[in-house]
Amino acid sequence: MPKKIHKILGVEFGTASSNTRYGSRDDSLVVKLPKEAKLSGKFTSNKLRAAPVKLAIKNLLKLSKENKILLINAGNANAATGPNGLKDVQSYCDQIAKESFIKKENIIPFSTGVIGEPLPVKSYLNAFRAAMAVTHSKSWKKAASAILTTDTKPKIVSKELKVGKTSYYVTGFAKGSGMIRPDFATLLSFVFIDADISQTSLNKIHKDALIESFETITVDGDTSPNDSSLLATNGNPNKKINKGSSTEKRLSKIITEVFKELSEFLIEDAEGASKKITVQINQAKNLAQAKSVAFTVAESPLVKTAMFGSDANWGRILSAVGRDKLITEIDKVAIKLNNQPLVRNGFIDPRYSEKLASKEMKKKDININISLGLGKRTFKVMTSDLSEDYVLINSDYRS
Amino acid sequence: MPKKIHKILGVEFGTASSNTRYGSRDDSLVVKLPKEAKLSGKFTSNKLRAAPVKLAIKNLLKLSKENKILLINAGNANAATGPNGLKDVQSYCDQIAKESFIKKENIIPFSTGVIGEPLPVKSYLNAFRAAMAVTHSKSWKKAASAILTTDTKPKIVSKELKVGKTSYYVTGFAKGSGMIRPDFATLLSFVFIDADISQTSLNKIHKDALIESFETITVDGDTSPNDSSLLATNGNPNKKINKGSSTEKRLSKIITEVFKELSEFLIEDAEGASKKITVQINQAKNLAQAKSVAFTVAESPLVKTAMFGSDANWGRILSAVGRDKLITEIDKVAIKLNNQPLVRNGFIDPRYSEKLASKEMKKKDININISLGLGKRTFKVMTSDLSEDYVLINSDYRS
Repeated sequence: MPKKIHKILGVEFGTASSNTRYGSRDDSLVVKLPKEAKLSGKFTSNKLRAAPVKLAIKNLLKLSKENKILLINAGNANAATGPNGLKDVQSYCDQIAKESFIKKENIIPFSTGVIGEPLPVKSYLNAFRAAMAVTHSKSWKKAASAILTTDTKPKIVSKELKVGKTSYYVTGFAKGSGMIRPDFATLLSFVFIDADISQTSLNKIHKDALIESFETITVDGDTSPNDSSLLATNGNPNKKINKGSSTEKRLSKIITEVFKELSEFLIEDAEGASKKITVQINQAKNLAQAKSVAFTVAESPLVKTAMFGSDANWGRILSAVGRDKLITEIDKVAIKLNNQPLVRNGFIDPRYSEKLASKEMKKKDININISLGLGKRTFKVMTSDLSEDYVLINSDYRS
Repeated sequence: MPKKIHKILGVEFGTASSNTRYGSRDDSLVVKLPKEAKLSGKFTSNKLRAAPVKLAIKNLLKLSKENKILLINAGNANAATGPNGLKDVQSYCDQIAKESFIKKENIIPFSTGVIGEPLPVKSYLNAFRAAMAVTHSKSWKKAASAILTTDTKPKIVSKELKVGKTSYYVTGFAKGSGMIRPDFATLLSFVFIDADISQTSLNKIHKDALIESFETITVDGDTSPNDSSLLATNGNPNKKINKGSSTEKRLSKIITEVFKELSEFLIEDAEGASKKITVQINQAKNLAQAKSVAFTVAESPLVKTAMFGSDANWGRILSAVGRDKLITEIDKVAIKLNNQPLVRNGFIDPRYSEKLASKEMKKKDININISLGLGKRTFKVMTSDLSEDYVLINSDYRS
């Protein structure tokens, strides 16, 4: 949790419980945004798109200059629910729009939870109504907690950019701990900016931030039908930022930092994870090769179980490199683990020390550095280890 | 174990222990083949090729019409061992060749076990020498047992083809329970034929058999630097088979059956497996799409853990289909599990019964039938579930 969570003027959060899957725990979140707000949404690449994702994409194209409302629920993904699923999300969105006197397209829905079960519309609608009545600009922690499923804790990042006497704030939260892999990764992420930025810049900043954050993490290679990232400005007229200005560039960097830290939180809290593993590829022929090798190593069950067992099993890492489809030769491969030399020229580095490598493996933070010796491109992926707990959590999720 | 294991005339097996990793358990196997024998070898697609694989490929191109000897050891893969690894395997092969009075190229080595550790040459050479002294045509079970690593039992298949008064025999064994995925899959497989077939036919039969067997199974998507499949005839002059004859075609079918049954044994004994899962793709646009979707589903950790948890979680199956890179739409997808309807038109089948589906999930044999509604191609993959035991075995393998 950050020391200070900066409020975003005009943005308010209300939570309540639908009293369904999670008992009386708050599982429904309402976010109110001012009429000046601009929104940028990016969604899952999975062809199985959840009903709320379909509606969100549609509505985001038709926003009007009125207040906007995000409706987010945990516990039911409303995915693979067919035409009825679409009717369901449409019905509770329309109802909240009507009761809030705004255009129905200004309601943007998000869902996370079990796939394929009909969403209990009445229960969530009641929760959204209750949440609407208690919104507050300070309820970040409640908001970040209400959207969780298998996560063990809320994930919030808040940053400030000072330019002269003006402070620009960026605060966001995210959830997701399995089913995480680009393009892109997290189940749900919401980041808010206290500034007025153009829609074009907002979209570009969002895209750039994703490339360096959620698109570089993987837990199990599985994506979800509900993956969504929302980046919104409040359109604060006192904090107008000109397109292409140096302030915009600096703010863009801060926003990317917020996304990156949220990504790290997701990996640290990945299902059953006991370690955070960074796979850094260097000297690749091109970006495609660097990415491909990074994900092959990061998603190899044999590498991930070795990490869980604190085993500096460089043979499995090298073997995963060797089976990557875009790898042409492995004779120049060098591998380091937290700066301990493991592999040189495609086989064991003469300086390798089992004792020192094992010592590094005891740490929670593992950096696997792989130099391919084929070119100059680099790419970095973050992942978690594969533990017994991952299996337990996922073999028992619906029960 | 088959009821009857047919001997292959002139083929003999001897086993012994190197007294290294596995204590006094036999871990070294010698196979003697007659001078008329013809051999076909297929090896891993991993660019990290183990030293014995490199030497085997080289030697197979230079076989002479003398006796041939296979030297197989378990416990050390001699992979990622650099130039010294090559010297090591060359040295014990040369020594056995010298002591057997045959050309050194007629020795074909295979290894399986830990990657990246120097092979204790003296210990294995002594074991091979001891094994040479005790070879016997009946020692199939000893042979199939000596090559095991994490497998829990030996895997042997033996079949007979009767044509008129002549019986043709095919007997083989294989090992491998993790690091299994095409192209192709098993760590080590050895199949012997009591017949004289041309080298061209032998190679073709081998290739065809692999496509329908080891290339359709996956445990964890990881390949090994040591994957090897050997198919050998004894060149029995009384069982000469003409190229392209109907007998050759029938024998080819029998051989493919042997390969398929060995594949099934591997999946049933996969690391930590509690279930055998068949993923059958129908109505794909083309073979590439069918294959891609089959492996995406079969290797999805979320699908595999749901199977382990006996959860008919069709949402995860559908979501895995949706994230496949070659899938263009999911609105026509239908999914059945052991003939229980799960999904129709991309969402839950109205006939779905949680109770009946759960009953099927209790079984050891799960068939996931996925119709894409996009074309006519089919493809089938076999895999195992992902259990806590898989994690335990693989996080503790080296210790």
